[in-house]
Amino acid sequence: MLRNEGSLGGEGSEGEIVSERKAVVLLSGGLDSTTVVAIAREQGYSVCALSFDYGQSHAIELDAARRVAREFGVERHAIVKVDLASFGGSALTTEQPIPKNRSAEAIGQGIPVTYVPARNTVFLALALAWAESLGATDIFIGVNALDYSGYPDCRPEFIAAFEAMANLGTKIGVEGKRIEIYTPLISMTKRQIIEEGLRLGVDYGMTVTCYDPSETGEACGECDACLLRLKGFLEAGVDDPARYQR
Amino acid sequence: MLRNEGSLGGEGSEGEIVSERKAVVLLSGGLDSTTVVAIAREQGYSVCALSFDYGQSHAIELDAARRVAREFGVERHAIVKVDLASFGGSALTTEQPIPKNRSAEAIGQGIPVTYVPARNTVFLALALAWAESLGATDIFIGVNALDYSGYPDCRPEFIAAFEAMANLGTKIGVEGKRIEIYTPLISMTKRQIIEEGLRLGVDYGMTVTCYDPSETGEACGECDACLLRLKGFLEAGVDDPARYQR
Repeated sequence: MLRNEGSLGGEGSEGEIVSERKAVVLLSGGLDSTTVVAIAREQGYSVCALSFDYGQSHAIELDAARRVAREFGVERHAIVKVDLASFGGSALTTEQPIPKNRSAEAIGQGIPVTYVPARNTVFLALALAWAESLGATDIFIGVNALDYSGYPDCRPEFIAAFEAMANLGTKIGVEGKRIEIYTPLISMTKRQIIEEGLRLGVDYGMTVTCYDPSETGEACGECDACLLRLKGFLEAGVDDPARYQR
Repeated sequence: MLRNEGSLGGEGSEGEIVSERKAVVLLSGGLDSTTVVAIAREQGYSVCALSFDYGQSHAIELDAARRVAREFGVERHAIVKVDLASFGGSALTTEQPIPKNRSAEAIGQGIPVTYVPARNTVFLALALAWAESLGATDIFIGVNALDYSGYPDCRPEFIAAFEAMANLGTKIGVEGKRIEIYTPLISMTKRQIIEEGLRLGVDYGMTVTCYDPSETGEACGECDACLLRLKGFLEAGVDDPARYQR
């Protein structure tokens, strides 16, 4: 279920010395998590990228995650299957329609139907399990509280609470190494995220942001995620290289 | 991956009215979690039992979990596959030998090699995801800090931190319903747990505690888990109905 995908020089291969600090980086294949991979690489981390096949209807994300992992030469890329769709409760994992063409005001209000119950808790928990098994203490997640404050599990208070819990509930934490959850994008606007990524050489044409892409990977341009992305590129004064349906 | 196993009267079947409060109960099929199912049933909960196929070498546990779920007439029993074994890092999920015939003193010291990195964090995270999808706020876990203080993720401070995190990271928590993690066994001795279970009519012959059972389900009688169980039955003055290899 956990597959170790394309890796440029994994540990132990051919007696190679791996001297970099390891970090587990959550990678969906979207704009935010891809930028986080670039940031972690720039900070000198050897990246162990973790993606999830969680029954999302837009599984085309995973192809994007594979491209990003390859492009950035991550040490390992694991795709873990975890069937959140069986639990139900979200438009992202059921047949429930994805809201389209909502105003910026509507997007900013309340918790959207695309919220997946406890998703980031589950993802961070599995990242923690992998990090501890690797002997790594650093975990990166591309949550953003500014553009999308509707998701409770993207807020700094949630991340701080998760980190506190992680340090109490693991061997590595209890034995005195500090587990850190890094959220480099948490206070950035979408424009700032894009500008940072471009500075680091990210090709955003590789990434998939859309909640409702076509089977050939074209973005709808109308869901909340597309609208926020397009607004970010507009504000940055850069063309979005993603393919849109119209 | 999530299978809905044998259920006595699930919601929605034949227009039946389900009026009981729902709780998600983590069920390994061992002595502790089985007692917790009995306690939750006695407290009037409709139990949604959650078990994990996580690559444990003693998968015979899951047969025990199925028997317990059937015996207690749970509303639903879900078995979720989550491949912690691929992460490595524990004697329970690898070929690493299980320690045998350790003294009570040795068992009480340090974190044992049977610790699985972040296991209870992952299990509780998935329980939380299911609870939120069900609209339930109550989660039961059979952790015990007294007999087995070596596991960091069995201590009350970890559970409290998880609960705080859960209330910050979920829609249900943010919207003002309080998520509660119940740990009815946390301060009980193994003897007290057994006595409570017997009072509630638990047949401990159904349960599997051993870390290293034979293929036909007989307990080794020598691993830490067996030794603690046998000590508990001895102190309770009751014969252990489990089958042992010798």
